[in-house]
Amino acid sequence: MPLWTIYHPADAYSDSDKAELAEKITDIYGTVMPRFYVGIVFQPIDARNFYVAGKPADRFVRIVMEHIARSFPSIEISRRFIDRVNTLLKPYVEDRGFDWEFHIDETPFDYWSINGYFPPRADTEDEKRWRAENRPSPRTHD
Amino acid sequence: MPLWTIYHPADAYSDSDKAELAEKITDIYGTVMPRFYVGIVFQPIDARNFYVAGKPADRFVRIVMEHIARSFPSIEISRRFIDRVNTLLKPYVEDRGFDWEFHIDETPFDYWSINGYFPPRADTEDEKRWRAENRPSPRTHD
Amino acid sequence: MPLWTIYHPADAYSDSDKAELAEKITDIYGTVMPRFYVGIVFQPIDARNFYVAGKPADRFVRIVMEHIARSFPSIEISRRFIDRVNTLLKPYVEDRGFDWEFHIDETPFDYWSINGYFPPRADTEDEKRWRAENRPSPRTHD
Repeated sequence: MPLWTIYHPADAYSDSDKAELAEKITDIYGTVMPRFYVGIVFQPIDARNFYVAGKPADRFVRIVMEHIARSFPSIEISRRFIDRVNTLLKPYVEDRGFDWEFHIDETPFDYWSINGYFPPRADTEDEKRWRAENRPSPRTHD
Repeated sequence: MPLWTIYHPADAYSDSDKAELAEKITDIYGTVMPRFYVGIVFQPIDARNFYVAGKPADRFVRIVMEHIARSFPSIEISRRFIDRVNTLLKPYVEDRGFDWEFHIDETPFDYWSINGYFPPRADTEDEKRWRAENRPSPRTHD
Repeated sequence: MPLWTIYHPADAYSDSDKAELAEKITDIYGTVMPRFYVGIVFQPIDARNFYVAGKPADRFVRIVMEHIARSFPSIEISRRFIDRVNTLLKPYVEDRGFDWEFHIDETPFDYWSINGYFPPRADTEDEKRWRAENRPSPRTHD
């Protein structure tokens, strides 16, 4: 469900940085949904293809997050989530001297498909099983 | 209008696979709108830049679809569309042992432009002409 | 805030074309918001990874714009903006024989973060300071 696209300078992260960051991002969502819902795409971008304020950006990380499985029930909860994300990101951005920016879009739950299945609603039996088994399986209820 | 971004393992598809898949995707939309509305970007992603469930994803295809020209009039019609897409994708995902996931976002019709024109509304004379000629041309009505 | 993703043929633009285009895009937004809100990602795409109307696209530029800081207050204003963008793009698309298409999505202001800060609302003291200094700084009001 969440799909993160992370645009970053080509030399910003080692493979093990990426693996570690991906694990931590997945942990945030994994407390409330199947871990396999979490998709992350790292996109290394050359400074000549990446501009902020009209200048080539060689120390900037830009993240786009698409949320599908859950929508924020209130602004307060969205702020708490965003603060957690900033805490998680700190060692990968601020502590390395990078500027960073992210935004979240929410897209329709009903227009979503995994391995040919329509994913179950939050906290249903099917979602609990998907989460416990960490993989999609045939739906057993509407 | 629809813009598909297809993230896939670098070795998943040959050039002719891609051409064939692009043709089939375009056929689905081409029954109701100009074929040139359909844009498809294939993005080969290395497993070290692609994570699902916190693990490098080397057998996973993730598709993001942005719909602009049409919005689904009902959940039933969206489900039928999604099932058709899964049938179309099967030879390129399930039959090759890949997991796959997609979601659709709908964006505002009015905030869209092709070759400097505001595209015509569905089923108008202008849209019929654009579809018949398979290219944009000056608008003749509001 | 605005994030532009520009998919283009690999040989479409020189580095100085990109720098010049990025500057002009930033100028449009810079009249009403901090220039550092403007992010632009150029994505060179091979024709074998880029399809329009089911055919490989070697002379096509596709732009996706995500707007966060401002939403259009009326259709008229969105049309004026889109016309300005087309005027700006003309030397980079039409005058080089490229077809081009773009669309704009608007995403929630509240789900947005820069350098750990929630950006200020339009025309507040904090936004004026961010704009004058062209960088984010601690918030001084709600």
